[in-house]
Amino acid sequence: MKQANPKAALILVRKETTPEDLRGMKAALGILTAVGGVSSHAALVSRQMGKVCIVGAGELDISSSAGTVTVQGKTYKEGDDISIDGFTGEVFAGPIATKPSEVVQVLISKELSPEKSDTFRRYKMVMDWAEKHRLLRVRTNADLPNQAAEAIAFGAEGIGLCRTEHMFFDHIAEMREMIMAEDTKSREAALAKMLPHQRNDFAGLFRAMKKLPVTIRLLDPPLHEFLPQNKAGQEEMAKIIGTTVEHVVRRVEELHESNPMLGHRGCRLGIVYPEITAMQARAIFEAAVLVKKEGIDVHAEVMIPLVGFEKEFKNQEKIVRATAEKVFKETGTRVDYMVGTMIELPRACMAADQIAKTAEFFSFGTNDLTQTTLGVSRDDYGPFIGPYTDPKKADILAADPFATIDQEGVGALMKLAVEKGRGVRDKLKIGICGEHGGDPDSVKFCHRIGLDYVSCSPFRVPVARLAAAQAVLEAQGKK
Amino acid sequence: MKQANPKAALILVRKETTPEDLRGMKAALGILTAVGGVSSHAALVSRQMGKVCIVGAGELDISSSAGTVTVQGKTYKEGDDISIDGFTGEVFAGPIATKPSEVVQVLISKELSPEKSDTFRRYKMVMDWAEKHRLLRVRTNADLPNQAAEAIAFGAEGIGLCRTEHMFFDHIAEMREMIMAEDTKSREAALAKMLPHQRNDFAGLFRAMKKLPVTIRLLDPPLHEFLPQNKAGQEEMAKIIGTTVEHVVRRVEELHESNPMLGHRGCRLGIVYPEITAMQARAIFEAAVLVKKEGIDVHAEVMIPLVGFEKEFKNQEKIVRATAEKVFKETGTRVDYMVGTMIELPRACMAADQIAKTAEFFSFGTNDLTQTTLGVSRDDYGPFIGPYTDPKKADILAADPFATIDQEGVGALMKLAVEKGRGVRDKLKIGICGEHGGDPDSVKFCHRIGLDYVSCSPFRVPVARLAAAQAVLEAQGKK
Repeated sequence: MKQANPKAALILVRKETTPEDLRGMKAALGILTAVGGVSSHAALVSRQMGKVCIVGAGELDISSSAGTVTVQGKTYKEGDDISIDGFTGEVFAGPIATKPSEVVQVLISKELSPEKSDTFRRYKMVMDWAEKHRLLRVRTNADLPNQAAEAIAFGAEGIGLCRTEHMFFDHIAEMREMIMAEDTKSREAALAKMLPHQRNDFAGLFRAMKKLPVTIRLLDPPLHEFLPQNKAGQEEMAKIIGTTVEHVVRRVEELHESNPMLGHRGCRLGIVYPEITAMQARAIFEAAVLVKKEGIDVHAEVMIPLVGFEKEFKNQEKIVRATAEKVFKETGTRVDYMVGTMIELPRACMAADQIAKTAEFFSFGTNDLTQTTLGVSRDDYGPFIGPYTDPKKADILAADPFATIDQEGVGALMKLAVEKGRGVRDKLKIGICGEHGGDPDSVKFCHRIGLDYVSCSPFRVPVARLAAAQAVLEAQGKK
Repeated sequence: MKQANPKAALILVRKETTPEDLRGMKAALGILTAVGGVSSHAALVSRQMGKVCIVGAGELDISSSAGTVTVQGKTYKEGDDISIDGFTGEVFAGPIATKPSEVVQVLISKELSPEKSDTFRRYKMVMDWAEKHRLLRVRTNADLPNQAAEAIAFGAEGIGLCRTEHMFFDHIAEMREMIMAEDTKSREAALAKMLPHQRNDFAGLFRAMKKLPVTIRLLDPPLHEFLPQNKAGQEEMAKIIGTTVEHVVRRVEELHESNPMLGHRGCRLGIVYPEITAMQARAIFEAAVLVKKEGIDVHAEVMIPLVGFEKEFKNQEKIVRATAEKVFKETGTRVDYMVGTMIELPRACMAADQIAKTAEFFSFGTNDLTQTTLGVSRDDYGPFIGPYTDPKKADILAADPFATIDQEGVGALMKLAVEKGRGVRDKLKIGICGEHGGDPDSVKFCHRIGLDYVSCSPFRVPVARLAAAQAVLEAQGKK
């Protein structure tokens, strides 16, 4: 909410968030939405940013245009104080004093010295025990250097998922120019403007991660997510990129999708527009070379999203490798890199033996794999997930499948993919970068099917480390 | 298009069709859309209705509000004559004389006697050959008695898929009343009004099919498909069912889904609103008893849609069986019936052994199984399916996966489901009712993995019969 004092702590209140809210989410201390579940956009992004978040507070009647929240007969407006508790899901009227956990005060804000905190001492003791046992590596999902640094403080051993969307949102005018372009040449011209910024962003991440591996996912969301959906935004965009509103509206209509989750996204973008893949690959390798010349041993892992067919992977891999070779030749420096893929479609699991012939690593994108395997949209399951998980009602599910891996369905496909993949490439590196990577039961399942690592949001890294150790002990019969 | 003469042949022209267009499609002789592919709503419904249809005519600029089509600088308006060729996809200005194939003239319109048609004689000779060899049974997808009768004339041996959506659209006021209802009692009251109509519809089908089996799928689409999405429609609806426009708008917003394909539909509806399943089951069994009393040996197969979990199936099966027993007791007559499920989610394939413990038959819904396995929406694949299937461009796919089964992905899951299902129930009846059931290559694949039957739209039945025979000969090495 907008406040008199711009430096005050802000809570972003929305019916639901979309990628268009990213800047607002960054600026906010907490996020509150009326719809969504554990795996909705607001929950995912907040978790990664380490922000307090409540989703699916269905009692709230939120009007973005009026800037009001109405609940139990009372209306709160922009500037009014509210407080939220992300553990209990409670929303309070008025301000409540809060402070971060002592572990965070020691490791992240460094305002407390370790010796002065008993909580931290116990945290460290448990983590030290865990380190003696766990076999799974624990990485983090991070897009920004500060997130990466936080995750390292919590013990992360690499980045398992760097989403690159924000790099396009941060330079939205150029991105929109690219989307409006009528031919390859104009698209390349717009992409060229984004290149130095992305190179800079990747360099920052490589520096923050030092010699730890960094997995970078190429552009994934459908292009319409980058266009304004309302009139005012479309008028502003037309002015900025120098075209007519009608042209913008027509493109928005052209790009509209009935089921965007199953639409023109992931590697399908890079296949139809190879110049996008080429620009991202160039930004990655130029950054890697730059940082290597600064004396840091970079390990880049380029990840192709939403692959279902071997030929899709090979199409994109070819562009990435050709670009890498070009950059290495231009700069006279080589960096260590791998090209692999997300496994997030049932078809990718069935064809894992074919894909692993070329792909050097797999990373299970269990959010999308759950959506497709179960045929359930994480944005739309609100009306039935309640009765489904209620033992007194339909009693279909023991747990929310977006919080804990559905082992007999999604998990069975993962197991099949591991077997098929390692069948043709016995040292195939396999991880998980879906939200499940920070859920203890899911982490244990990943251990049992033989994954090499899990990757989760920075604040969940200690949880994953602990669960990884417990998985080993449980397998030895020690509960 | 609206014409001066209401009895004239009409062509329905739309950007794309939705279930709201069903009545228009019934009234039209041909259907023409600007977007969509082989498996879009317009294509599916036209095929089943036996209507000429062109989808994805992207050059046409269609304005429904103005009632115009603009193409190559010329504008055609409602009432102007156009002609379409469903084989070539061509649209012509002006009227062109057409006549149905002689096979249709002999078998369907009966305006030609078989002896007078050389074409029909050759058709019959080939079909007679096919009958000597094929092992797969061939059923049809039909919702109406006249479609069923046509399919029987083409040699169909039962209904493999009766969609029940149209029964709710035909009594849309009652359906909308049910959707707006705030509690179970009001929902049941609205459903009670639909019961006699559905009973009547089912009785018509059972009579048309005589002793042949009839597979009836319970309500599948999300409820928002039954609500008007535009202002005028919402105002009209509010008036008819006696509520405020605000109430209607609020419900439309509540039911809005980001990805309706993965939303609150299929058995998820019957699980949250068991009264819908109970009403449909009652209509089916009351109709079956009625027709049996008329001397026809009815075989009803009740099919639960979109099952992913054994518990979902059991939840719905229990309601169906309890309702059947009630009706049999009330009427003093029993009819033969089975309860089975669509297999249309990857999770259902992985859990087929669990589901087959209770389900008496499986029917592969390969449209949705393709959408979920590949993560591709049939409504949204337009922008990439071109380059994907073009050997000179991306060259990812040999064929459109919605026209011909993707054997290595979707087909591999089907094979797994057959093995798992028959592993626990060795005589499990298994068929396919997706559009692929009328595609020769897919029919042959179904033969190879051991299905009992394929089901396709009436006019494709002869094609499926022929392909089923060819599959046997090919397996014997005779091409």
